[in-house]
Amino acid sequence: MISIRESKFIKSLQLKKFRKLENRFIVEGAKNVLELIQSDLIIDKVFATDVFVNTHRHELANPRFALELVTERELNKVGVFTNNNAVIAIAQIPASKPLDYSQSILGFDRVKDPGNLGTIIRIADWYGFETIVCSPDSVDCYNPKVISATMGSFTRVQVIYMDLTAIIGKVSHSYGATLQGSDIHETEFQEPALLLFGNESTGIAPELITQLDREVTIPAYGAAESLNVAVSTAVFCDNFRRVLKQK
Amino acid sequence: MISIRESKFIKSLQLKKFRKLENRFIVEGAKNVLELIQSDLIIDKVFATDVFVNTHRHELANPRFALELVTERELNKVGVFTNNNAVIAIAQIPASKPLDYSQSILGFDRVKDPGNLGTIIRIADWYGFETIVCSPDSVDCYNPKVISATMGSFTRVQVIYMDLTAIIGKVSHSYGATLQGSDIHETEFQEPALLLFGNESTGIAPELITQLDREVTIPAYGAAESLNVAVSTAVFCDNFRRVLKQK
Repeated sequence: MISIRESKFIKSLQLKKFRKLENRFIVEGAKNVLELIQSDLIIDKVFATDVFVNTHRHELANPRFALELVTERELNKVGVFTNNNAVIAIAQIPASKPLDYSQSILGFDRVKDPGNLGTIIRIADWYGFETIVCSPDSVDCYNPKVISATMGSFTRVQVIYMDLTAIIGKVSHSYGATLQGSDIHETEFQEPALLLFGNESTGIAPELITQLDREVTIPAYGAAESLNVAVSTAVFCDNFRRVLKQK
Repeated sequence: MISIRESKFIKSLQLKKFRKLENRFIVEGAKNVLELIQSDLIIDKVFATDVFVNTHRHELANPRFALELVTERELNKVGVFTNNNAVIAIAQIPASKPLDYSQSILGFDRVKDPGNLGTIIRIADWYGFETIVCSPDSVDCYNPKVISATMGSFTRVQVIYMDLTAIIGKVSHSYGATLQGSDIHETEFQEPALLLFGNESTGIAPELITQLDREVTIPAYGAAESLNVAVSTAVFCDNFRRVLKQK
């Protein structure tokens, strides 16, 4: 069972302040916890139902963490998601690795929605981007809603928070997603590059746009005013990889 | 103000059963209601705060619907979204137009998540697809969470619920998004086509896959197991339009 102390601790980790203080975050749901277990991340404890433990005997053999049997009801009480009924883990936030400028990087200026950042981490993982940089006022990548939306990709993609101006100055090539750039289908991307995306409502800040090598736009064939930032990220990554594969 | 009767009516429209019975749906949020007002859809009534009315005098001039001034608190009480603090409208569900097989169509087999379908409708609108077909057991497109995620595109894209087998038999070309198809970057798409996508967990049903002309896959460059269905839809639409533009 989950003790009152543990329950309070898990709930406190829903807040960034306590995640920073404790250097811990929570991982909910079967897919995410199974990926966590297979990763190098340090796990303090896993709270799981007997159904989950029986279904995943193989993955849970010789565990390198404390494993506690709990009920679905207990999990629903401490978790963020109301129908999380299998497993919750407490893991350590890993130390950041230094930014590798020889690799292409995805950058985000003030991304605010946790579901968007989680989906973006999953897209980065699909398209082989190991690092995402976010402006310091972006949503925290250890927010439980971000972790949930990554579908396990949080174990493979590093998110670094830092001033984006500093990065644009150091990368070989920089491309920004705007609504008035050149056609992405005609863009001869070069690597290593920074692909930069902006806030859900206001896009990339003008002072960042002026520093970029190029503004690039996904052509519209209909009447929608914009695309969701995670959707734009995927279309950019797809065009970037396609063009560089052909070179 | 919103009367008790109206309040009950608006809340009832959160359920598909009552939407079908009343042939009405609700539209929440400034962007969606402004697009609704500019569309051909029939609007019964708009409930708006004085701030919204003052900000959008131009759009609200000579209204073809009843306009009621309400408080933010009243809107928060009847709406699905807790921070919807500007406007809610009641609109009529339009009659379906017959399927036009001379146009390319997006198809979805058992898409279940309202946020996904809403995002898909927005993507369809960006890429100029006027019609989406969904299997009858997919999420209802008039679900308030779907409407909200469309960002106004529900006014321009028609969603039809019907047996997908019947459609595959009638379209000139059909392509399905699977994990074991040919590389989308090498695919010479032809139009008019049906682009078919599957359920969030299980993909396209095997009996539909066998009827398709071709299975197509977005190549992975990293380790994520899959992409979100809305994200895949955008990448497919982008490749489809790019290839056909070059012809």
